[in-house]
Amino acid sequence: MGEFELLARDGLARIGRFSTPHGPIETPALLPVVHPDLARQPVHPKELRSRFGLGAVITSSYIIWRTPPLREIAEEKGVHGLIDFDGPVMTDSGAFQQHAYGHVEVTHEQILHFQGRIGTDIATVLDIFVEPDAPREDAARGVAETTARATKARADRAGLLAVPVQGGLDPELRRESAAAASMTGDVLAVGGVVPLMERYRFADLARVLIAARPGLAPEGVVHLFGTGHPMTFAFASLFGVDLFDSSAYLKFARRGTLMFPEGSISIDSIQERVCRCMLCAEVPLTEVAGLPGSERERRIAEHNLLVCSEEMGRVRQAIRDGTLWELAERRSTGHPALAAGLRAAIRGTRIFLPTEPESRRTLRSTVATTGLRPSVIRFLARLDGFKQGRGPYRTLPFVPLTTVALRTLPAQTRDGATLDWEVLRPVGAVPIELADVYPAGCYLAPDEFDARPRAGGFGEALEGLAVDRERDWSPEWTRRQVDALIAWRYGPAAATALRAANLLGRRSPKTGRLRRVERDGVILFHVGTDGLVRPTWRGAQLLHATLPSPASRVVVDADAVPFVREGRSLFSRFVIGGDLTLVPGASALLVDKDDTLLAVGRLLLAPGEMGRLKRGVAVRVIGHERGEEAEEPDEDVAADPGAL
Amino acid sequence: MGEFELLARDGLARIGRFSTPHGPIETPALLPVVHPDLARQPVHPKELRSRFGLGAVITSSYIIWRTPPLREIAEEKGVHGLIDFDGPVMTDSGAFQQHAYGHVEVTHEQILHFQGRIGTDIATVLDIFVEPDAPREDAARGVAETTARATKARADRAGLLAVPVQGGLDPELRRESAAAASMTGDVLAVGGVVPLMERYRFADLARVLIAARPGLAPEGVVHLFGTGHPMTFAFASLFGVDLFDSSAYLKFARRGTLMFPEGSISIDSIQERVCRCMLCAEVPLTEVAGLPGSERERRIAEHNLLVCSEEMGRVRQAIRDGTLWELAERRSTGHPALAAGLRAAIRGTRIFLPTEPESRRTLRSTVATTGLRPSVIRFLARLDGFKQGRGPYRTLPFVPLTTVALRTLPAQTRDGATLDWEVLRPVGAVPIELADVYPAGCYLAPDEFDARPRAGGFGEALEGLAVDRERDWSPEWTRRQVDALIAWRYGPAAATALRAANLLGRRSPKTGRLRRVERDGVILFHVGTDGLVRPTWRGAQLLHATLPSPASRVVVDADAVPFVREGRSLFSRFVIGGDLTLVPGASALLVDKDDTLLAVGRLLLAPGEMGRLKRGVAVRVIGHERGEEAEEPDEDVAADPGAL
Repeated sequence: MGEFELLARDGLARIGRFSTPHGPIETPALLPVVHPDLARQPVHPKELRSRFGLGAVITSSYIIWRTPPLREIAEEKGVHGLIDFDGPVMTDSGAFQQHAYGHVEVTHEQILHFQGRIGTDIATVLDIFVEPDAPREDAARGVAETTARATKARADRAGLLAVPVQGGLDPELRRESAAAASMTGDVLAVGGVVPLMERYRFADLARVLIAARPGLAPEGVVHLFGTGHPMTFAFASLFGVDLFDSSAYLKFARRGTLMFPEGSISIDSIQERVCRCMLCAEVPLTEVAGLPGSERERRIAEHNLLVCSEEMGRVRQAIRDGTLWELAERRSTGHPALAAGLRAAIRGTRIFLPTEPESRRTLRSTVATTGLRPSVIRFLARLDGFKQGRGPYRTLPFVPLTTVALRTLPAQTRDGATLDWEVLRPVGAVPIELADVYPAGCYLAPDEFDARPRAGGFGEALEGLAVDRERDWSPEWTRRQVDALIAWRYGPAAATALRAANLLGRRSPKTGRLRRVERDGVILFHVGTDGLVRPTWRGAQLLHATLPSPASRVVVDADAVPFVREGRSLFSRFVIGGDLTLVPGASALLVDKDDTLLAVGRLLLAPGEMGRLKRGVAVRVIGHERGEEAEEPDEDVAADPGAL
Repeated sequence: MGEFELLARDGLARIGRFSTPHGPIETPALLPVVHPDLARQPVHPKELRSRFGLGAVITSSYIIWRTPPLREIAEEKGVHGLIDFDGPVMTDSGAFQQHAYGHVEVTHEQILHFQGRIGTDIATVLDIFVEPDAPREDAARGVAETTARATKARADRAGLLAVPVQGGLDPELRRESAAAASMTGDVLAVGGVVPLMERYRFADLARVLIAARPGLAPEGVVHLFGTGHPMTFAFASLFGVDLFDSSAYLKFARRGTLMFPEGSISIDSIQERVCRCMLCAEVPLTEVAGLPGSERERRIAEHNLLVCSEEMGRVRQAIRDGTLWELAERRSTGHPALAAGLRAAIRGTRIFLPTEPESRRTLRSTVATTGLRPSVIRFLARLDGFKQGRGPYRTLPFVPLTTVALRTLPAQTRDGATLDWEVLRPVGAVPIELADVYPAGCYLAPDEFDARPRAGGFGEALEGLAVDRERDWSPEWTRRQVDALIAWRYGPAAATALRAANLLGRRSPKTGRLRRVERDGVILFHVGTDGLVRPTWRGAQLLHATLPSPASRVVVDADAVPFVREGRSLFSRFVIGGDLTLVPGASALLVDKDDTLLAVGRLLLAPGEMGRLKRGVAVRVIGHERGEEAEEPDEDVAADPGAL
């Protein structure tokens, strides 16, 4: 079975490394479709890599098989020799041709063996293409037959195998097909979706990906057949698509169409210098339009490839920055059909929650659905629980986020009576103690950048409150906030238990924000710019004594215990259990199987992925007996409007 | 006075040609700030033009004046010699330095004369910089003094003059200042806005531009001081900014910041190949980050320039395509502050209405404010009037736009009783006869790309209606639609009058859409893909006999009458009057001062601009005694989801 190492993530997207016999594929990746007859391929595979940074390709084993001269070369020199390329090559099996022409003259066993014989890196099972709107029984038959073929193929092939996921628009069938493919495939290739993309049915595409998700194994590499338009990359990546393949760059070029992340446009309508890419520096698009046919087509194809490659770079950067939702939202403004797709994504929140990181840098409201992102939904659901048994809460009128005073609103009124307060955030009314917590604390919405005086605005609220900084930051108020933040993260029982521990909150003298929690001069928790408490090694010891197992635990295999104790990262394959409610980015107590505390760390993987991904780090160790990472710098990112 | 020729438009943005002694400036244009000491200028002005397509620059006459070695060269060889550039050069006057340092050692007369002496193409009046939040009396004093200086400057200078528009956030003062500047300036330079942009107060920036607009002369070229961030270009262009200037490309480079249309990002955070521009083909951004200081700074500055130039190209292309609102909406997703700016723009609808074209190709709903664009507001306002005295209307449940049947929904129910119908469009309930009219007929919203079955959807509606194509397209129903379309465009009186004229509607056999209106085999009106009737020469004769002057008229100066009769375009300077309710894109009857019909044409300018712009075409002649342009092709753009 193939090996996939996860390096960074956002949404369900994964920057990772997928090993193949001809080297790794860095995901997410676009595999351009290469014609096996290089005479019909306008851009040489080596150029795809050297000029466009596209290091892996896909070609059709079926076309090779049915074309004797190509077949002869491929059988002699292998598919890599045939297309003169020494990087990873995936081969398709002719299922789409079978679907389009009604039959192929090859059996699924024949084409699988043939793929092996020509030395493909990733062979694809010849599946049954199911149209999105196929009757359920047809779809079910297609799924069953595909699964049967995949089972046989797995038994026959030692190398990497791509198994299609079919099922049309039937959610149950898609999930079943995904689960079956996960048993046999290294690459889980969601198929039958080209008709959806051709008709701009992105909402249905989202539904397909949502339905398949619970069946897809985390160690599988998810491929989406036939998605080559850059406007879909951010969107599909968000849904966990690791590999894209497409001949769209070429098909669009043939009809003179330029692809951009914002949509397509005919080259003949370009009148201005809209692009300054390395190709346009040679021949601007306005001149390409007038070139002779084949030259024009080749240049448009190259331009499309470059745009695709650049957009994939942006997707990768957004994953690293934790801004993939923002990018997908931005791309959704390219066409109403994409906005419809994003709305469908929002309805599939549950598939995102297990791997949704504990926090991000900011949450910027850019489109109407921003307020329904998984991180917001999770926050609100948690808030409901948090509020149980507390109150009464009063709601303040809207106050601008960037006002430092807001962050330290007093717990007392002018007459000294203690009250509970809530602040109105773009996420709704939030207890004042949680005002800095992600996403409430860093949610930037348009209103905050509009300086118009608001009826019942902050000035008015302040007037009634007689803010007194000294009193705002009183030990009593700080204690109360510490208590709330611990309750938020570890539950009311833990907060009650730790209340006796004589904790002392420390604020930033500059911003007034809570920065750490100490006891007897020893730091137990840092408070991040995301407003969340995170234990140090000493704090972890306290938590370990307070929280019953398995809460906040990740259990380490005996083989790795000595390494983790010394502060080395915990690798995925050494995880044997843990708290399933943890999410990436969260702090965890690393324990051995007897619940002895080894270290404290932060999750890169979700618990459901640990142990299943064979390579890579599951938990990065932050603190242990003999060492500790430094505190986060005291900067107030959310308050800086210039931090674009 | 300077001459500005308008070539294409969208929103208040104008592709135009502004003549200067050193050649024309093609608007909208970014004028990079060039340091007059070329040793301190990392990109040579000639390179700005040759490599980045930025053909005009701005430099500081004040820095030249106060730096003897530079001053000496400038006085000897002129400013063009000093900066080694033979294209258009605008000079700034030191007002910002005066504001920042409290004083400059030069009077406004001195610096104006100095600018003339060194041969600047556009001299700027030394104005009083007014902070956005300055007290009103200070702002008023600043405006009054600026106006006084400008009046003197105009008397002293024959060449092109830029007159700043000040007034802080006071709408009244901004309008007054704009009106005063319009009396004296060729370039109307909105100033005092840098503090707004630095603090992301784009909503206030929008308010400033809205307030100034009624005072700005259409023949003036509008400049916005200090806007050099590409994320603002689409937004500010929409508000009619023709010229941008900025040193931001350089200032950002100094602190290692890359500018993109989506915002700024530190070069040190770039980990992926997010850009494939011609510069990144040489040295990718990931490597630029590691270069030595000055090399790094120069390369970032160049990258910023390239991105700015590319974005300006996109703005220009969007103006030509009539999609500038879409581009601005898309850019508003870069930061919530920009979304706040767009909301403020929406509140200023009135400034957009006089030049808002009669129709566009499509209206795509991409963000929440799409439904509040000026074209929608105008449609709805007109609809209110149209509905007076008609009805009763019934409202159908939502039906997808792309369904051809919808466009031809019957005027009869199964039992034969005639009813009035409305269809629900994204713009609201619309009488069925107007279902194809822009924007109701081509408004693409996300819902239409979501195939989920909807309660009360189209199928259900159809069931109750017993659609019968033969009957749908009955002569009676067609007559009724013709009647409605004429009433929509020319009012109920005209419709009543033309009802006697025995008009015959013709539909496209392919789409069922109304395509033209005939009488006795002669075409009187074409019906565009925007659903609007537009007269041929014969139709114009009928309208001329029906509509009382000045309705739908543009009155031609006697000197141009013979040319217009022959089908030549009507130039702006030959317009002497007309119907002030006409808008760009509308059909008009061209008449002489005795109301003799000369030709029928389509407006490029708004009536308020005609005669004031000294160069360029006001009305393109479409039909006249001896000739006629061909009909639009019968294509149904809105129904093609692939038309991105």
